[in-house]
Amino acid sequence: MIIVMKTGATERQIQDVEKVLEELGFQTHPIYGAVKTVIGAIGDRRLVEAHSIDHMEGVENIVPIMSPYKLVGRELIHDNTVVKVGDVTIGGEELIVMAGPCAVEDEDQLMSTALKIKEAGAKVLRGGAFKPRTSPYSFQGLEEEGLKLLAEVGRETGLKTVTEVVDTRDVELVSRYADILQVGARSMQNFKLLTECGKSQKPVLLKRGLSATIEEWLMAAEYVVSAGSSNVILCERGIRTFETATRNTLDINAIPVVKELSHLPIIVDPSHATGNWRWVDAASRASIAAGADGLIIEVHPDPSRASSDGQQSLKPDKFANLMKSLKPIAKAVDRAL
Amino acid sequence: MIIVMKTGATERQIQDVEKVLEELGFQTHPIYGAVKTVIGAIGDRRLVEAHSIDHMEGVENIVPIMSPYKLVGRELIHDNTVVKVGDVTIGGEELIVMAGPCAVEDEDQLMSTALKIKEAGAKVLRGGAFKPRTSPYSFQGLEEEGLKLLAEVGRETGLKTVTEVVDTRDVELVSRYADILQVGARSMQNFKLLTECGKSQKPVLLKRGLSATIEEWLMAAEYVVSAGSSNVILCERGIRTFETATRNTLDINAIPVVKELSHLPIIVDPSHATGNWRWVDAASRASIAAGADGLIIEVHPDPSRASSDGQQSLKPDKFANLMKSLKPIAKAVDRAL
Amino acid sequence: MIIVMKTGATERQIQDVEKVLEELGFQTHPIYGAVKTVIGAIGDRRLVEAHSIDHMEGVENIVPIMSPYKLVGRELIHDNTVVKVGDVTIGGEELIVMAGPCAVEDEDQLMSTALKIKEAGAKVLRGGAFKPRTSPYSFQGLEEEGLKLLAEVGRETGLKTVTEVVDTRDVELVSRYADILQVGARSMQNFKLLTECGKSQKPVLLKRGLSATIEEWLMAAEYVVSAGSSNVILCERGIRTFETATRNTLDINAIPVVKELSHLPIIVDPSHATGNWRWVDAASRASIAAGADGLIIEVHPDPSRASSDGQQSLKPDKFANLMKSLKPIAKAVDRAL
Amino acid sequence: MIIVMKTGATERQIQDVEKVLEELGFQTHPIYGAVKTVIGAIGDRRLVEAHSIDHMEGVENIVPIMSPYKLVGRELIHDNTVVKVGDVTIGGEELIVMAGPCAVEDEDQLMSTALKIKEAGAKVLRGGAFKPRTSPYSFQGLEEEGLKLLAEVGRETGLKTVTEVVDTRDVELVSRYADILQVGARSMQNFKLLTECGKSQKPVLLKRGLSATIEEWLMAAEYVVSAGSSNVILCERGIRTFETATRNTLDINAIPVVKELSHLPIIVDPSHATGNWRWVDAASRASIAAGADGLIIEVHPDPSRASSDGQQSLKPDKFANLMKSLKPIAKAVDRAL
Repeated sequence: MIIVMKTGATERQIQDVEKVLEELGFQTHPIYGAVKTVIGAIGDRRLVEAHSIDHMEGVENIVPIMSPYKLVGRELIHDNTVVKVGDVTIGGEELIVMAGPCAVEDEDQLMSTALKIKEAGAKVLRGGAFKPRTSPYSFQGLEEEGLKLLAEVGRETGLKTVTEVVDTRDVELVSRYADILQVGARSMQNFKLLTECGKSQKPVLLKRGLSATIEEWLMAAEYVVSAGSSNVILCERGIRTFETATRNTLDINAIPVVKELSHLPIIVDPSHATGNWRWVDAASRASIAAGADGLIIEVHPDPSRASSDGQQSLKPDKFANLMKSLKPIAKAVDRAL
Repeated sequence: MIIVMKTGATERQIQDVEKVLEELGFQTHPIYGAVKTVIGAIGDRRLVEAHSIDHMEGVENIVPIMSPYKLVGRELIHDNTVVKVGDVTIGGEELIVMAGPCAVEDEDQLMSTALKIKEAGAKVLRGGAFKPRTSPYSFQGLEEEGLKLLAEVGRETGLKTVTEVVDTRDVELVSRYADILQVGARSMQNFKLLTECGKSQKPVLLKRGLSATIEEWLMAAEYVVSAGSSNVILCERGIRTFETATRNTLDINAIPVVKELSHLPIIVDPSHATGNWRWVDAASRASIAAGADGLIIEVHPDPSRASSDGQQSLKPDKFANLMKSLKPIAKAVDRAL
Repeated sequence: MIIVMKTGATERQIQDVEKVLEELGFQTHPIYGAVKTVIGAIGDRRLVEAHSIDHMEGVENIVPIMSPYKLVGRELIHDNTVVKVGDVTIGGEELIVMAGPCAVEDEDQLMSTALKIKEAGAKVLRGGAFKPRTSPYSFQGLEEEGLKLLAEVGRETGLKTVTEVVDTRDVELVSRYADILQVGARSMQNFKLLTECGKSQKPVLLKRGLSATIEEWLMAAEYVVSAGSSNVILCERGIRTFETATRNTLDINAIPVVKELSHLPIIVDPSHATGNWRWVDAASRASIAAGADGLIIEVHPDPSRASSDGQQSLKPDKFANLMKSLKPIAKAVDRAL
Repeated sequence: MIIVMKTGATERQIQDVEKVLEELGFQTHPIYGAVKTVIGAIGDRRLVEAHSIDHMEGVENIVPIMSPYKLVGRELIHDNTVVKVGDVTIGGEELIVMAGPCAVEDEDQLMSTALKIKEAGAKVLRGGAFKPRTSPYSFQGLEEEGLKLLAEVGRETGLKTVTEVVDTRDVELVSRYADILQVGARSMQNFKLLTECGKSQKPVLLKRGLSATIEEWLMAAEYVVSAGSSNVILCERGIRTFETATRNTLDINAIPVVKELSHLPIIVDPSHATGNWRWVDAASRASIAAGADGLIIEVHPDPSRASSDGQQSLKPDKFANLMKSLKPIAKAVDRAL
């Protein structure tokens, strides 16, 4: 940690800061420049949270040097984490595709979708039972009924299942039915929910918040891991920017950056990241080429009648074509699909 | 609602869209241009949520005309909502200032702060008992112990109290102790929490999310009001932009825009909106001049020893000076302080 | 064009707007809803620019239906534009890679780089002679001396050349030396410069502005084309967002969106889009997989001694490896490299 | 400047970096932490621009300590700059309001506006002769004819004049007619234009770019000042964010931040910062309350017939009312109007 003193900070102010740092257990190393003084402080940055050094007289700002996450970073754990969900592994050589409708609507819809995505090569079935909707007047999901349908179709088809949990009170319920718990973009900093999901021991698919920095996203993963579950799958789903031609802006750079900073697997949701089925193919291919460990894609048998997010859903035949087109790209980056 | 058809859409495609709209209960009015056709649709936009018309052949996009919120908008309710908390009214002629520490730490800290802010003219005491912190290793608040201290100090000083609730499971608990429930920026789209807060019948202080549009923010308020509480106070606390010199960017424009779109009161949190106590004064004065109904400001007796957000906290004497400087500005915009 | 009237707009106000529209040459089609009235207006949206209808009594806002660009859009021209620079074609089946140093420094540096990128498969040599630098104290480029070196090395190696022009006064000079004129991100809305470049008849590489929407970018291209040059190559180079882990955010979605809206070729600059050589490979592969027509990459023989942007420059051997890795991805999307 | 070495950087890598820094004239101070090493480097940061240290083996990143601007910062010049334009002073005790139409259209329009804004208390007449328009098909301004009208009306009314210059070739021409040269938001990083404006010795009104950080804005001012003109007036005009309810987001925080970092005066353009005349009053009052040195406001006698930006223009009587309402706010912050 580096403490930058203001231009004109007095010797007394510098000594006061040093004294406080030493009381907090840091070793201090002041460097006197012609105009400014900076103080290098060696120790655990977390200790300083109990003291607002940046409020002391003469302090301009504080520059952290160490990353704030420990368990999800590469500094302590160098090998990639491979998340196992039964016989499905995420983060290994094989790329994993998750697919299915935005919301679980009825058994026919779900079963017909499941059979088709399985045939096309998907390994995990997605489908929302609890839907966080911007409007209180929109369809909010089938809740436990939806979870049951999802579990049943998963069992019959042999697909693993992933579904969103939005409320701490539902973690136990959702854990009973689903193979993977999804924490949505809007819940990425619902820290109580992250903790409950971590305690559940279930694998967690952690979507990036709409305006979350990569560091904040990894800190959210740190909450889950520190609560007990090391099986976290990160999911880039587009960030909010000024561009309005697309629903979100897929931050493709995040893939190599996360791979460098963290050992956790990362997949991409091209449906939300673009907001339009016409651009899902391009975004999917780009994600695999950039090094993602998989994809989660919205597929609906009749998107014009979907109860949610129809505009960004692929029809099953288009999904099958996309899967075919991904194979040579996967091979080009030494992955299997 | 306007449905814009693609250039080259066929007569058949146009008729199909009209047919679906009519089945959904809309009246349709096609307008044939030289290059493009648009279809005006009169009816309840919410009906269309059950049908993804934008996925139909030939449809380019859909332009909503009516705002999606009903209860919080000015279309049905023209008069300003005045929220009453005992003898304190928010949204009336008088401006209301809420102040106090970021986190409740101990009785001495809270009581000494409370006495000073009251003397300076504040009417509501703020203080966090449940703190949503980016890092799992940071201080997370005193929880029920903090709520008790807050209630006690409120009772002794005659100040009303506001504190954040972050978990649906805690709404009942927090409601027992606090006069106003705060929903924080990170929880703005925690729809289950919004619903629980609405059911509690307590006044709700609803902070704007870091990357929430004004429309999304009003939709979040719609959740609370539709669940039963019409006493919602909006709070602008800065949005996330590319600028890094400040912690957030105070969206001062939001004040007149919200006043035009909604009848709910709006206050500003200049502490989070700037992230630095040195800029809190300017932001506070600007907010009152722009028409805000009040402020919520972090005040701490010794910011350099605050357990959270010390950098943006004012010392009590600086807060008192700020309050004095706000009086002539309040008068200039025909408000009392 | 749709004019949305305010709730409560009077019949008189509606008629006034209709009258003005008709005077401007529009056909009008009012649609009366239960709460709101909208007026469909058929005609040339440009006509309305001479009249601020949105300032008339009772008008809420105006929704354009037609895209504002004509020459660069797909509405009139359906076939892809293929830009020819001698025997090099951009936008055809073959992918084109441009490479070279950020700034032209000296002949040795440029020649050794040129020979290596040519060997690796690049077809165009890049190198800045006029550098737009954030600081007036940074190296501003060799100017005409740099142009001469670039032309000479281009001639000797058989590579085409591209270099930035930043001043209307230099367009003629730069046109004498370079094969392609580059308009940088900071100049994307320097409309006088766009016009001069269009008049020069040289192919123009038009970078997207840091905060330009896709529509604004296409409008900038419209300036160039309407001034006389139909040979415009768009270049996505990352946009500015809240994320600070990377220099910019590569908007990978822009590739399929631009391909849908415009017939112009689009390439990607992964060096600026990431800001760090370690992530250039992933961004390059993603861009090709998403459908880009080529890349422009910074390559420097000794990045640690580059006079500009060393951090994002690849060494020649890493560039050669990247080019090899792109071949199977190009093939997977039916392109040649 | 602090060089942060990667976790696991070798002693050899650390020594190599130190050696290069010393060759560049820095004094080095390594600090060895348990996990990471950082090297404090004392000297002129500009020296390092000639060497990409961040590309050396083992280097993670570089943290600058000194601000990159010298002439416009407070480190060397503590007193506020007061820009004098004849008998009008900007940055002193008196607040200065500039007003007038977006574009100069004809003599009647300009003269009638000028007389009214003068009566209301404005001191400077604004009016565009060269208009940077997003569309090549929009009105581009009257050019020299407009300059002549502006100068004539200025002379007759005794108002000073400000108008935009968009092309290096026009700086001499515009300087002949106008009292203040305006550099628009889209030209903020047109460094050649900044230099020409600086050389002209005329006062320069420098608008902030749509996505410019405060640091980049001050660096643009540094270009002007280092070219010869110390009379720079900064102008906050709103930044681009995700919010679409307003044309731009007025960054009100920028006022106290700029006042702290720089000695230059800063004014606000509430017309562009909101994009709608209905919100100009609130934004103007907020700007004065936050400490701005003045305003520049679009006023048009018949906004519905303005050739540009009618939606954000005030009518003269509304402008006069606004001016009255600003007086008590000015007084509240110890300024005169």
